[in-house]
Amino acid sequence: MTKPSQDAPTGAAPHLEVVPLGGMGEIGKNITAYRYGDEIMVVDGGLAFPDAHQMGIDLIIPRIDYLQQHAGLIKGWILTHGHEDHIGALPYILPRLPKVPVYGAPLTLGLVREKLSEFGIKDGDVDLREVDLNDKVRIGKHFHVEFLRMTHSIPDNMGYLLTTPAGVVMHTGDFKLDEQPADGKPSDLARIEQAGKDGVLLLISDSTNAERPGRTPSEAEVARNLEELISGLKGRVFLTTFASQVNRIQNLLHIAHRQGRRVVMEGRSMLKYAQVAQATGHLETPDPFLTSEEVSGLQDQQILYVCTGSQGQPMAVLGRLAFGNHAKIALRRGDSVILSSNPIPGNEEAVNLIVNRLYEIGVDVYYPPTYRVHASGHGSQEELATILNLARPKFFLPWHGEPRHQINHAKLAQTLPRPPKRTLIAKNGDVVRVGPDEFKVTGTVPAGAVYVDGLGVGDIGDDVLLDRASMGQEGILIMTAVLHPTPHVEIVSRGFVRSNRELDSQIRKVALEAVEGGLREKKRLEDVRDDMYGAVRRFVRKATGRNPVLIPMIVD
Amino acid sequence: MTKPSQDAPTGAAPHLEVVPLGGMGEIGKNITAYRYGDEIMVVDGGLAFPDAHQMGIDLIIPRIDYLQQHAGLIKGWILTHGHEDHIGALPYILPRLPKVPVYGAPLTLGLVREKLSEFGIKDGDVDLREVDLNDKVRIGKHFHVEFLRMTHSIPDNMGYLLTTPAGVVMHTGDFKLDEQPADGKPSDLARIEQAGKDGVLLLISDSTNAERPGRTPSEAEVARNLEELISGLKGRVFLTTFASQVNRIQNLLHIAHRQGRRVVMEGRSMLKYAQVAQATGHLETPDPFLTSEEVSGLQDQQILYVCTGSQGQPMAVLGRLAFGNHAKIALRRGDSVILSSNPIPGNEEAVNLIVNRLYEIGVDVYYPPTYRVHASGHGSQEELATILNLARPKFFLPWHGEPRHQINHAKLAQTLPRPPKRTLIAKNGDVVRVGPDEFKVTGTVPAGAVYVDGLGVGDIGDDVLLDRASMGQEGILIMTAVLHPTPHVEIVSRGFVRSNRELDSQIRKVALEAVEGGLREKKRLEDVRDDMYGAVRRFVRKATGRNPVLIPMIVD
Repeated sequence: MTKPSQDAPTGAAPHLEVVPLGGMGEIGKNITAYRYGDEIMVVDGGLAFPDAHQMGIDLIIPRIDYLQQHAGLIKGWILTHGHEDHIGALPYILPRLPKVPVYGAPLTLGLVREKLSEFGIKDGDVDLREVDLNDKVRIGKHFHVEFLRMTHSIPDNMGYLLTTPAGVVMHTGDFKLDEQPADGKPSDLARIEQAGKDGVLLLISDSTNAERPGRTPSEAEVARNLEELISGLKGRVFLTTFASQVNRIQNLLHIAHRQGRRVVMEGRSMLKYAQVAQATGHLETPDPFLTSEEVSGLQDQQILYVCTGSQGQPMAVLGRLAFGNHAKIALRRGDSVILSSNPIPGNEEAVNLIVNRLYEIGVDVYYPPTYRVHASGHGSQEELATILNLARPKFFLPWHGEPRHQINHAKLAQTLPRPPKRTLIAKNGDVVRVGPDEFKVTGTVPAGAVYVDGLGVGDIGDDVLLDRASMGQEGILIMTAVLHPTPHVEIVSRGFVRSNRELDSQIRKVALEAVEGGLREKKRLEDVRDDMYGAVRRFVRKATGRNPVLIPMIVD
Repeated sequence: MTKPSQDAPTGAAPHLEVVPLGGMGEIGKNITAYRYGDEIMVVDGGLAFPDAHQMGIDLIIPRIDYLQQHAGLIKGWILTHGHEDHIGALPYILPRLPKVPVYGAPLTLGLVREKLSEFGIKDGDVDLREVDLNDKVRIGKHFHVEFLRMTHSIPDNMGYLLTTPAGVVMHTGDFKLDEQPADGKPSDLARIEQAGKDGVLLLISDSTNAERPGRTPSEAEVARNLEELISGLKGRVFLTTFASQVNRIQNLLHIAHRQGRRVVMEGRSMLKYAQVAQATGHLETPDPFLTSEEVSGLQDQQILYVCTGSQGQPMAVLGRLAFGNHAKIALRRGDSVILSSNPIPGNEEAVNLIVNRLYEIGVDVYYPPTYRVHASGHGSQEELATILNLARPKFFLPWHGEPRHQINHAKLAQTLPRPPKRTLIAKNGDVVRVGPDEFKVTGTVPAGAVYVDGLGVGDIGDDVLLDRASMGQEGILIMTAVLHPTPHVEIVSRGFVRSNRELDSQIRKVALEAVEGGLREKKRLEDVRDDMYGAVRRFVRKATGRNPVLIPMIVD
């Protein structure tokens, strides 16, 4: 395809290394590095939210050891769009790496600036460079990037064609093929088809919905369903969706305008996204937003609240409304609540709790699948097939998915008329070498999760989470043996059982006997402590069937 | 309708009290009491499984204070079917109440006996009385019960007509209207229609799927889909479903026989249900079950494993297979795994984890909705409407559902040609008074959850769970100030942050300063302890942004 350049490793055909550091084998914390010779280009820097087992963690960012170890090689960075799972880790990552050009579309960079400023990172500390869709940029000597418009649930979303001496990579970014996008600008399929004809060496494509047959509904269909639903409602309407669903919110503003409802945006992230999107010209407001005080004089059917809380977060606006602890607004009979969203896996219970509370309050509640007021931002099987058919890649890397999604995406590709010659199911940290005639994993680099909790980044590891889980499941029992003047044992517990004097005194007795026995035998204090631990462990297990975390202490 | 009997409360029309103690406003731990005059009849005694917030709890049983307070009035008990959410609490409940006749169908009582014997409760301690479908029994003077066959996902499932001097109650029990049940015995709709013509005062009906349009697919459809799927598979097949899905397992045994596969039942509960169902004649085995050792000589396509673990439990068979720690069986490429189940709300993440592991192992994985290999045991809107139309109740109590299900069931009833005159959305503990011309909540009795954890029943309350949640989220930090010979502070933490000497020494310093200050001012020791607590709380919050559970101790 191309001749080896001088910078390519000697003695080998020219090759590119694709190094996913996040987002490969998972949905979340997307970040990918490309290395060609002694140059690295990075794509995105997103975060992930913890699952139920990662207790107390606020968020998760990717490990970037690989980038830190090769910091001098990084020539530039590109951002595909402004969702948290693509830009949310930047405030943690960018300050730890050399300042290089970071390219992104206006809305994306607007959201990044907002985020960096929250962390006190100044404009001068980063080199953000605005690009338009279809712009081309060169990063280092070897990376030629051409941005492509791809429709998604946020405007200014991009895939890109990456031309290197080893060949052309087509990366879809997050996408669905929405034929009626809110901003009237569909995906650039013609350019993908042309690239396919010219020769795409590797396709990296969004696997999120690889298990869903058919097509993902258009945002326009969601808007039509919302308009029909809202037009039939008499009272106040409260709608919740992701704050980042700028396209849907745009449609909603037009619906509200046509139906004579004024819009109140409620919730910090809802306001933040709206402000940035307005500033970058991505959110047209037919009527100015009002505050909840300003709409108090209007009739109920003239009010539409757009709220945070679609994932059941108890402290977001919908959560506070459902639990009756919102400072300014109280739900009442006659109100309608629309959940223009689906729970993300893991949030089902939290959302269900809120939905039940809403029913108990007596408001009318509308949500999928009964009401078709939500659509995914990711393409289903037909859309994935369209991209594969147009790009006609030699090699294929299903990305942005868990193994189930990657493998079903790979199977889908094999059913098409011109399947890829080879597909790899990669993981974070895999070094995927790709060249005109090779496509394989040649090694691994460190990759994984860094936990962010409170002010701490990376000071919580899986060992700490394991302790949290044990205490959360079984509680804790602390035994303090004080040896002087005469040995006695104090116990304190949390989360073990309801205070129970008889059990407490039995445990103290068992512990004291162990301590006294050890002292009589003149054991070392560590051994006395271990004896106390063992005796209490056995007794508690037998008496209660439980295994609390036990902490034995000896005060000499 | 009927005249007041002598035992009816004087000065009022005859009335019945329906007192749901579990299963009303929730899905789980079903138990209902009926009171007429000075007689009480009880229905079912089920358990619930904890949600994510009820950490470390094994299971939940209903509070039975009401029954204990009126123990002398209880005349009998009936059981609708053998699922855990209807009989699982009996070993905890029955021993605390007087011995009264407990009526149930053969399979139901078989499962109850098995369960009681696990708890060491002897046959003579309870008065189990076998009834057949369509049998009639009298309980006390006033309760005339006629059992009705209703199809569900377990054989021997029953609803009933309860005739009292106040009128007739029709209770569906759990049901779907399966036209092709595995045992060939459809629901007794003709009897319900007749009862409707004769006059049903109150209908209590299953709301589980009140939000689902249409009909729930028949078990026969699931069986056809399973047969088609399995007939195309070449290697070993591992199928998981609820062990209590006796009807589905019956169909599977026939499928295996027709396809020349021998069946291995794996998992304790799978074996237990199969044994009881075989003993009561509800599970016909065309070929005897084999063990995993016995099938080792067979070819792969001659083997069907039926396993526990459909809800993602890591220690059940499928979980151990997925994580590669099953003692006898290892999955390999060429195997197929069928999840003939859906995750119960709350179990999605656990099931997803296992599905991904299966893909990573390289086995083929089949599950809904892509493969239609599961159907709910509860009827959807059309089936609910059928019951309402046949029973034509004057009053309606949507049961076996959360508020969202109850309210949608109530709304459905209002759309029918002959809607109930009144519908109540009741909660556990409500005393629902029903008579020829009245239907209202007249009071409440204690109702709610008793947590079972290890050997403890009820020794864990919401306060203990709150402590567990706090420690699980933030960890714990224990500070022990030892005052002699000179004051010093020891700290121990779990689940807080990775061991960090500098932070530890800062915390010790802050604590010690507070202690020394307090001692100088000759404060009381409690106050010194509180000072240490406050100082460390403030310091830790500022230094780490976190709020671990703090335990201050002073050793004088």
